[in-house]
Amino acid sequence: MRELLEAVAAGELSPARAEAELRGYVTDEAGRFDAARTARRGIPEAIFAPGKTPEQVARLALAAVETTDRALVTRVTDAQAGAVEAAVSDEFPDASFDRRGVTLLAAAPGYEPPDLDATVGIVTAGTVDGPVAEEAQVVCEDAGAAVDRIDDVGVAALDRLLDQVDRLREADVLIVAAGREGALPTVVAGLVDTPVVGLPVSSGYGHGGDGEAALLGMLQSCTVLSVVNVDAGFVAGAQAALIARAVDGAGE
Amino acid sequence: MRELLEAVAAGELSPARAEAELRGYVTDEAGRFDAARTARRGIPEAIFAPGKTPEQVARLALAAVETTDRALVTRVTDAQAGAVEAAVSDEFPDASFDRRGVTLLAAAPGYEPPDLDATVGIVTAGTVDGPVAEEAQVVCEDAGAAVDRIDDVGVAALDRLLDQVDRLREADVLIVAAGREGALPTVVAGLVDTPVVGLPVSSGYGHGGDGEAALLGMLQSCTVLSVVNVDAGFVAGAQAALIARAVDGAGE
Amino acid sequence: MRELLEAVAAGELSPARAEAELRGYVTDEAGRFDAARTARRGIPEAIFAPGKTPEQVARLALAAVETTDRALVTRVTDAQAGAVEAAVSDEFPDASFDRRGVTLLAAAPGYEPPDLDATVGIVTAGTVDGPVAEEAQVVCEDAGAAVDRIDDVGVAALDRLLDQVDRLREADVLIVAAGREGALPTVVAGLVDTPVVGLPVSSGYGHGGDGEAALLGMLQSCTVLSVVNVDAGFVAGAQAALIARAVDGAGE
Amino acid sequence: MRELLEAVAAGELSPARAEAELRGYVTDEAGRFDAARTARRGIPEAIFAPGKTPEQVARLALAAVETTDRALVTRVTDAQAGAVEAAVSDEFPDASFDRRGVTLLAAAPGYEPPDLDATVGIVTAGTVDGPVAEEAQVVCEDAGAAVDRIDDVGVAALDRLLDQVDRLREADVLIVAAGREGALPTVVAGLVDTPVVGLPVSSGYGHGGDGEAALLGMLQSCTVLSVVNVDAGFVAGAQAALIARAVDGAGE
Amino acid sequence: MRELLEAVAAGELSPARAEAELRGYVTDEAGRFDAARTARRGIPEAIFAPGKTPEQVARLALAAVETTDRALVTRVTDAQAGAVEAAVSDEFPDASFDRRGVTLLAAAPGYEPPDLDATVGIVTAGTVDGPVAEEAQVVCEDAGAAVDRIDDVGVAALDRLLDQVDRLREADVLIVAAGREGALPTVVAGLVDTPVVGLPVSSGYGHGGDGEAALLGMLQSCTVLSVVNVDAGFVAGAQAALIARAVDGAGE
Amino acid sequence: MRELLEAVAAGELSPARAEAELRGYVTDEAGRFDAARTARRGIPEAIFAPGKTPEQVARLALAAVETTDRALVTRVTDAQAGAVEAAVSDEFPDASFDRRGVTLLAAAPGYEPPDLDATVGIVTAGTVDGPVAEEAQVVCEDAGAAVDRIDDVGVAALDRLLDQVDRLREADVLIVAAGREGALPTVVAGLVDTPVVGLPVSSGYGHGGDGEAALLGMLQSCTVLSVVNVDAGFVAGAQAALIARAVDGAGE
Amino acid sequence: MRELLEAVAAGELSPARAEAELRGYVTDEAGRFDAARTARRGIPEAIFAPGKTPEQVARLALAAVETTDRALVTRVTDAQAGAVEAAVSDEFPDASFDRRGVTLLAAAPGYEPPDLDATVGIVTAGTVDGPVAEEAQVVCEDAGAAVDRIDDVGVAALDRLLDQVDRLREADVLIVAAGREGALPTVVAGLVDTPVVGLPVSSGYGHGGDGEAALLGMLQSCTVLSVVNVDAGFVAGAQAALIARAVDGAGE
Amino acid sequence: MRELLEAVAAGELSPARAEAELRGYVTDEAGRFDAARTARRGIPEAIFAPGKTPEQVARLALAAVETTDRALVTRVTDAQAGAVEAAVSDEFPDASFDRRGVTLLAAAPGYEPPDLDATVGIVTAGTVDGPVAEEAQVVCEDAGAAVDRIDDVGVAALDRLLDQVDRLREADVLIVAAGREGALPTVVAGLVDTPVVGLPVSSGYGHGGDGEAALLGMLQSCTVLSVVNVDAGFVAGAQAALIARAVDGAGE
Repeated sequence: MRELLEAVAAGELSPARAEAELRGYVTDEAGRFDAARTARRGIPEAIFAPGKTPEQVARLALAAVETTDRALVTRVTDAQAGAVEAAVSDEFPDASFDRRGVTLLAAAPGYEPPDLDATVGIVTAGTVDGPVAEEAQVVCEDAGAAVDRIDDVGVAALDRLLDQVDRLREADVLIVAAGREGALPTVVAGLVDTPVVGLPVSSGYGHGGDGEAALLGMLQSCTVLSVVNVDAGFVAGAQAALIARAVDGAGE
Repeated sequence: MRELLEAVAAGELSPARAEAELRGYVTDEAGRFDAARTARRGIPEAIFAPGKTPEQVARLALAAVETTDRALVTRVTDAQAGAVEAAVSDEFPDASFDRRGVTLLAAAPGYEPPDLDATVGIVTAGTVDGPVAEEAQVVCEDAGAAVDRIDDVGVAALDRLLDQVDRLREADVLIVAAGREGALPTVVAGLVDTPVVGLPVSSGYGHGGDGEAALLGMLQSCTVLSVVNVDAGFVAGAQAALIARAVDGAGE
Repeated sequence: MRELLEAVAAGELSPARAEAELRGYVTDEAGRFDAARTARRGIPEAIFAPGKTPEQVARLALAAVETTDRALVTRVTDAQAGAVEAAVSDEFPDASFDRRGVTLLAAAPGYEPPDLDATVGIVTAGTVDGPVAEEAQVVCEDAGAAVDRIDDVGVAALDRLLDQVDRLREADVLIVAAGREGALPTVVAGLVDTPVVGLPVSSGYGHGGDGEAALLGMLQSCTVLSVVNVDAGFVAGAQAALIARAVDGAGE
Repeated sequence: MRELLEAVAAGELSPARAEAELRGYVTDEAGRFDAARTARRGIPEAIFAPGKTPEQVARLALAAVETTDRALVTRVTDAQAGAVEAAVSDEFPDASFDRRGVTLLAAAPGYEPPDLDATVGIVTAGTVDGPVAEEAQVVCEDAGAAVDRIDDVGVAALDRLLDQVDRLREADVLIVAAGREGALPTVVAGLVDTPVVGLPVSSGYGHGGDGEAALLGMLQSCTVLSVVNVDAGFVAGAQAALIARAVDGAGE
Repeated sequence: MRELLEAVAAGELSPARAEAELRGYVTDEAGRFDAARTARRGIPEAIFAPGKTPEQVARLALAAVETTDRALVTRVTDAQAGAVEAAVSDEFPDASFDRRGVTLLAAAPGYEPPDLDATVGIVTAGTVDGPVAEEAQVVCEDAGAAVDRIDDVGVAALDRLLDQVDRLREADVLIVAAGREGALPTVVAGLVDTPVVGLPVSSGYGHGGDGEAALLGMLQSCTVLSVVNVDAGFVAGAQAALIARAVDGAGE
Repeated sequence: MRELLEAVAAGELSPARAEAELRGYVTDEAGRFDAARTARRGIPEAIFAPGKTPEQVARLALAAVETTDRALVTRVTDAQAGAVEAAVSDEFPDASFDRRGVTLLAAAPGYEPPDLDATVGIVTAGTVDGPVAEEAQVVCEDAGAAVDRIDDVGVAALDRLLDQVDRLREADVLIVAAGREGALPTVVAGLVDTPVVGLPVSSGYGHGGDGEAALLGMLQSCTVLSVVNVDAGFVAGAQAALIARAVDGAGE
Repeated sequence: MRELLEAVAAGELSPARAEAELRGYVTDEAGRFDAARTARRGIPEAIFAPGKTPEQVARLALAAVETTDRALVTRVTDAQAGAVEAAVSDEFPDASFDRRGVTLLAAAPGYEPPDLDATVGIVTAGTVDGPVAEEAQVVCEDAGAAVDRIDDVGVAALDRLLDQVDRLREADVLIVAAGREGALPTVVAGLVDTPVVGLPVSSGYGHGGDGEAALLGMLQSCTVLSVVNVDAGFVAGAQAALIARAVDGAGE
Repeated sequence: MRELLEAVAAGELSPARAEAELRGYVTDEAGRFDAARTARRGIPEAIFAPGKTPEQVARLALAAVETTDRALVTRVTDAQAGAVEAAVSDEFPDASFDRRGVTLLAAAPGYEPPDLDATVGIVTAGTVDGPVAEEAQVVCEDAGAAVDRIDDVGVAALDRLLDQVDRLREADVLIVAAGREGALPTVVAGLVDTPVVGLPVSSGYGHGGDGEAALLGMLQSCTVLSVVNVDAGFVAGAQAALIARAVDGAGE
């Protein structure tokens, strides 16, 4: 601990990073950022943006970059993303920002994700499943997994799906995103011998809309699936990344 | 009307049948039986047994046989079925009784269903869908449609289904019964060019069990389906029979 | 296949149409359009606009027109409709556009729907059911069925309905749209001998509002109905069109 | 108050009745019986039997007879009814007991209900609505209203209903009981100019079964209704009785 | 009928009024207005504005004024109200308009409501129940009942309620509006001997908010109530008005 | 720790008690019993019997008596209670057993609950709330609080409640149990200045029955309440006991 | 009473305050403000702003300040807060206003809350729980309790929580706010011997979002909790304040 | 294929096994058993017993043993288990049967599960989670994974859990079973770096009981989890087994 404090005194280590190494988390007035979990699980601790002010999001993102070299912000608005970019750039002038839809990844200069020897297949039933799948993809890539996207193969026209069976079987773990009746993960899980994570999407309207029918259908699936909540792209991606890490042997 | 009353007086027409022809329904202390609807729609007016005493069921069944030559009783218990058989046999000593599971069809001697030039395909996902499919089948057969049963082709193993595509395409209308996640009607409707009626079955357990997920999934289907309520085998069969009659040109 | 590719080489066949004939669907970066299903079922594959960008809708619509001569877009916004009209007109300068409410039908020059010998009756309970009924009507007309609209005959005043019984009985299949308590399809189905498709509409407020009571009531109907989801005008129309095709003998 | 206590001392007034007159309710170890409400509202305070031991039901019934001359017990089992009859007969050897289905009315010798100049029409859609309607009828009769029962006129066959319009219009207030989709009160309320109380019944199965669809449909009715809970025959009867009393001018 | 047509020819009777007298309803391109029901029930047929265009609302309101001398429009927006006032004023230059909150009553010159010898008490638990109570009040007044408003007597402070018991007991029928837990109608019904109509209001937040807890509580009330849907001020008012008419003897 | 182990060796301390003091819990093959929590909170750790075999319940109860001198078993069946009494008597021949309804308290010889200077008022709306209130009472008494039971004062007849206001105000904390619409805790909380814990009871039937309406109403209460789950008599009693301990100053 | 009226006449007492002392509440055209409850319970009667006009909120707030020296307005908008500040300042030029998020406390000059010898611990799981916790804190402080805020100690990283166990144990009562799965109150209640009030927060998305999972989890907690509704910061604060008052002995 | 048929002719291969190899599934009158899936996924195809007759279960189990050397039957009754044992013993006199609770594994003589180099940790919160965890364990063992059971470590007493952290971290994948509020998987997932599959259990009572709160809480978890349906022990086990196979490298 003495060494650590001397490094802080010498300006070689930020106070945030030192606190993170000593206590596992950073205390900021916008909240506590759990750096230890990121380090341990190998997947980024996401900052869920809704309900936070831009300033709160920015402070938490900065704490994340300071202690884990990057920050993953989900469901971010333009105002929140702007605040993050401003705050992080201020501390890390050469930081890079990768924004895809409502997901923002801010990285300290020189940050490199790990490189796992495992592939996550991410499958969507239709065009509207794209943004949620994108959220999952960012997490998997940050965790170092290879990602294979197979889009728009919903069960209404089975040929689209059957044409992709070989790619489906090559992945080590599959995320399958679908809205409406959510039948795609069930059908996919009947065709492969890898774990499938069902990701219900809030499409559909009327009774059972907003992903309710899809979620229930995946919970009731006559094949073997585990499931995450509606639109929980981050959770599906992180779970697949944990499986990919286990397959790779990372963390052992 | 005079002729009718004279026929009653002469004992050539039962009072029940005469009332049915004059008013469209028979008034019995156990309820009013709607004979006109049976005559008009070409499908039997079902007597839904739950909540009725054996005697009430028997009286209604007798009224049905007297005015429409047969009675279809659904969800019948042994006690109710026994009461029906006793009451109907009493009036019609040579009546025949066809009981399949919880469905009972009592017919006056010599009753012959019509003969429609149309086929209803009845498809099930698994073994537990059998009794509900049976209920649908009895109605279709009574209405005179040919029935093709294709069992146990759930989507967990697509080969079982794809092996039957030709039979699926030959039917004029399909009833597809499925529980759990209820994906089968969606997949079937993507493979054929005939109307598909989805029939959710109350299998499954936990959240969305008892047919709830199946019903919601069929309502949200990404293909074209219409749906009946959970376990409503009679309604699915009757709707398919009405379509078969329309295809045949019956009733015009 | 050689002929087909030569036709493409000669500019007589677009690449999209060739792909559609070879694979059954067109792959576009906005998604895969399932041309084969349209061809097979005789009803247009609808492009459900919500959740898609105007550009995505326009690309899918163009793929639809290129391969099936017309595109049906449902729940379209002004921006999406504008993008479709621009994209299709660009390729097909004499294309025609028929927009009714939130439904848009874009057709290549010279496109003619088929002509079925069957009539779909479309019945509404009140003024607010109009837009959903309109969506159903567009599909039926595109499939070639004659349509008879009978509006504003809700059960609160039975005379309005009883005055129309003859027209109801002349249709080969009926779509009956109703919100609030959704009793109209039940009452109509008791008056006719044709298949009735119940179409619940998201009117009403408070408990059971937004079409919930109407949907449940139709699922529980004491007459014979099949049902589609709340506001699913397209599905009701397509199901009725499939029945009309079966009645006509089309596709055999 | 002195007089009252002297009457007790003289054995002319039971202590229970004295307590009821002084405090409005009787305190028994099985609970407090609210005699004042019965007196004030003109409708009996029902003893809801489920969840009570036979002894508790019997003690409360006895308190009711002692203070209001009769006891109305709803949803009574054989064991509870037996206990009531034993306990009441013990105190009132010539008491009379009127049990209809799950409703029991115990009356002190000589008890006579009042005689209101008002008629309650009680209408049922089908045979299964009978027991709930019976519960309503007992309350109305006990309150002194004339009752006109019109059974089995569900909307699946409108003729059955239209044949009874004149009787419907003659009642001062109507209770309309229906299960399944519960459309009957809506249709009835469109035909009459009297207040209609909708009484949903727990028939039906699958989604919206057990009276849920019926209740929602009545709450969403496009005509004017007020509603009671599913199977709440006592409440419907008591509400109709209060209206009948208001029409009669009783209590003024 | 000849006389009627001659009156139309002579310009003494508008075609709309003639159609209303002959058929019971008026057919307009915006819908059918049910004039007969208004005449028969003595309460105005409300025009429910949501989901209708201003022009549709205006046409229906005009039809109502032409055939029943006034129009009651509920949940009206400014645009719809403006359209109604313009359309009605155009035909009836001296028409009067009474707008309270979201309720609009348009009346032909000289229109006078009837005068019933009955009082409707309208009770609210708090300030937020005001607009819904107002909707009920307009209907009662139009039907000719006297109205006694008793506001802000929620059960959290019983003294506010107990101070008003005498006024509560003087009404012939009570409407009791309450949101949150909706306990007020239950407590009121325990204090009076008149029929009470519970009117749940969509206040409250979190679980059971938007009137759900209030509705359920009124359905489960341990006193005698009948209930209307959440925020259904018009229905509560109309039901109370029908009771008031029955009390008055109107319509007999 | 050495002392403790020596006491075990000397037979002065049971191994279970020693383990409990060292680790805070006892490991038995039927589960782990958390003795430390009982010690710390001053309220017994209840053994919830449903879903456990009689043997499992008995083993856990014995572990409880061994380490905390008594065991509280809730929702116990006769078979389970018998097994507990046998197992505990076997180890503690003079143990005492206090069974009230579905609650069983087994105590080692000489066990005395503490004596808090605080009173818990336990109020019920009706007879059916008794067993749940009993469960709460056992916990409060075991924790040493004085208990004042006030039964059968539901809001349908306010006088019954208003007669008890003084007793209500004398308690330090109140548990108010009610089913049906659950209005009683709301009304009570408006009359007192002590904390009120609402305890919904699973009475009632139809929509909102089984305590659902009561729970929602208490969550939406327009007065200040906190709430426990439906029929959670143990939790209500334990929470009140914790408050009583805080009032008493116990544990400081 | 004469003294009181003379004080009014002399201008020493406002009419509002006099009415409050005489009747317990103030009658204003915006509603009745219940001053007696504030006085009795020692916690302010909150003015719930949603659904009220700015003028109504201002009038009620003024009545509160006039009779109880301060007004607590919850879920206030800027417009409503402005109206309150204007109205109160007009009457009390030196009034002070403490606005935190959506909560506004207006105080008459010189108003001092009481000083209780009891501490309320307010614990949050994450940043988004802040505003609801703030609402609870304002009430506790107004009631005179000391407040200890412990923020951002959600169970995803137990170290954050375990580091605070000593502070948790020092409070007399704890409010624990959490959204998503709402596990924090359960874990906290296992660590302390004080009463814990669970406060579910409407964070989360998809199935069980908006606080539903958190509320259900707290109701089902395997430790001892009582619960308030989702986002009911005021209720949690007031309940904790009542407990703190009981601990302090205030009001006795 | 010729070889295969010759082996059948020679009696070296059963017809069932031959059909399974040729078509992937066996057709029996009790249903189609999907042998190929078992072979491909390395996890047994479970036979879900509810809703099937003992004879149907026995026939399907026999088909499973014939084609995949063992049969896994879940939720089996005594009658069904007896039928399975009789039927399988008849064909395979030395078959072995391993029945644990409601799970039955029938194995052909000499059947040996594979041996994976991966460990599944199965964690339960309490005693009632045992049977569901057992179901998961059977599947994992059959698939060849090592299983580490860690029982009764619910979050109400954190020490029980924290004492097991090392074992938790040594597993390659964790199944965490919990009922009531279901907080355990959330807390566990915060302590480890392996994938966690949440398994909600149908314990609990009242609102959110029967596993509903547990399921919702796991879906809303603030840590990373995937989830299976309530009581879906087989699915959780099979998903964990698929992950264990991926970790082991089996199937590549």
